[in-house]
Amino acid sequence: MDDAIRKKLFQNAKVWVYEAGDKIREQIHQQFKVDTKSNANDLVTEVDQSTEQYFQKQIKSHYPNHQLLGEEGYGDNVQSLDGTVWIVDPIDGTMNFVHQKRNFAISVGIYHDGVGEIGIIYNVMEDVLYTAVKGEGAFRNDKKLDLLSNEVQLETSIIALNSSLACENKRVNERKIQQLIKDSRGTRSYGSAALEFAFIAEGILDGYITMKLAPWDFAAGYILLNEVGGITVQANREPVNLLEGNTIVASNKQISERLLTDYIELKE
Amino acid sequence: MDDAIRKKLFQNAKVWVYEAGDKIREQIHQQFKVDTKSNANDLVTEVDQSTEQYFQKQIKSHYPNHQLLGEEGYGDNVQSLDGTVWIVDPIDGTMNFVHQKRNFAISVGIYHDGVGEIGIIYNVMEDVLYTAVKGEGAFRNDKKLDLLSNEVQLETSIIALNSSLACENKRVNERKIQQLIKDSRGTRSYGSAALEFAFIAEGILDGYITMKLAPWDFAAGYILLNEVGGITVQANREPVNLLEGNTIVASNKQISERLLTDYIELKE
Repeated sequence: MDDAIRKKLFQNAKVWVYEAGDKIREQIHQQFKVDTKSNANDLVTEVDQSTEQYFQKQIKSHYPNHQLLGEEGYGDNVQSLDGTVWIVDPIDGTMNFVHQKRNFAISVGIYHDGVGEIGIIYNVMEDVLYTAVKGEGAFRNDKKLDLLSNEVQLETSIIALNSSLACENKRVNERKIQQLIKDSRGTRSYGSAALEFAFIAEGILDGYITMKLAPWDFAAGYILLNEVGGITVQANREPVNLLEGNTIVASNKQISERLLTDYIELKE
Repeated sequence: MDDAIRKKLFQNAKVWVYEAGDKIREQIHQQFKVDTKSNANDLVTEVDQSTEQYFQKQIKSHYPNHQLLGEEGYGDNVQSLDGTVWIVDPIDGTMNFVHQKRNFAISVGIYHDGVGEIGIIYNVMEDVLYTAVKGEGAFRNDKKLDLLSNEVQLETSIIALNSSLACENKRVNERKIQQLIKDSRGTRSYGSAALEFAFIAEGILDGYITMKLAPWDFAAGYILLNEVGGITVQANREPVNLLEGNTIVASNKQISERLLTDYIELKE
């Protein structure tokens, strides 16, 4: 992608994310309809939907040739990463949005011919914007983030994971996850994959493991983490797939191999 | 306790908490020494210690007859709750303090003849002060918190717990905790007991379960939660003990009985 095009694209994306955040903050204390999707705990609200529609409208009017892959289905039926593809989660952490009215994010990843160009994660209620442009590093608001530490060890790491991974499940050997919980310094669970990626990029978490993540959950975080030297792979060591659901092991590079070797054993 | 005495005590405690928060913010980006206590992940810093010493000095100079029970041992050897006892955690969530430079709190609970009179939890980096005075309700900064909802059900609850409870352990049947993880809407883990109590009081979490909590971890949260109609008990259904370590089940009253009956089975 041409530098000038990327620069303008980044400016537009940032403006739209901030505008979407304004709209979310206007709606958050009003009544809104909550529905469920794949299961009783997979929530969606009118606000998720209207926010995605806002992005759809902006993208289609300014960049009619770009495709949109969005969580709520207002985008395109994206079959390939050819050209420019926006991968958008209008509200990542909808359960937090509904129950907590905070701790959720807008996540926007922009890919060109499969290469991550721009990643934006906006912690709406804290008004913290994480951004990354390929080759230019990552930022938390106006502050450039340091490259991740070379001195992180598993035993002094804090790992984000959902406690359900330590329970009997179909995807991963829970005994090894339980061992990880014992061997690491501590675990945390925040309920927003986008923010969990952002926290690794900031260095306040050292890793994040999840067995079921859609492209819109990590499309921005993957780019952000790349820019600070972090590693994101699937649990089977394959590169992440931007068109399908993924198992994800994202971490400081010092512990990535150890997480994959010692603590992740896929069942399927 | 006399109303006028309580009022003045509350004012002083608030001023000292804010001052202690100022000092912590001054020190947080400097180098500080980190040591370990009971195990390699039980951290303590110079800042925990100096903050507790600050409270000790203020309390002893203004209220020489009051006792201080503090995490770092600069207080008194408190053997009973007779008279007025300050129960202080200078930094609750020291692991967060060290690794994240946020998500920790100052926790101050003041008891008179065993009755909780004043609870203060200060999220230092967010500058959010949670306060409660017996019989006067609970506040988040200047906003009075609503009584907790009467409509909470286990299946739509968000429960805070450390993922280690789902692993083989000596204290509680992990199988039942795993069932709770499956039956509830979701779990979270933030790494600060005081904040997890505050979040229940706010209604953004519905419960918090932990098998090992010292009095300074919950002395303020217990009072805060009382004021909004929440319930805090030990896992064996005994009242909390302010002089010893406790198992804790804190929650919205609608789900307290169900948590205790269906999901908590003590091993010892």
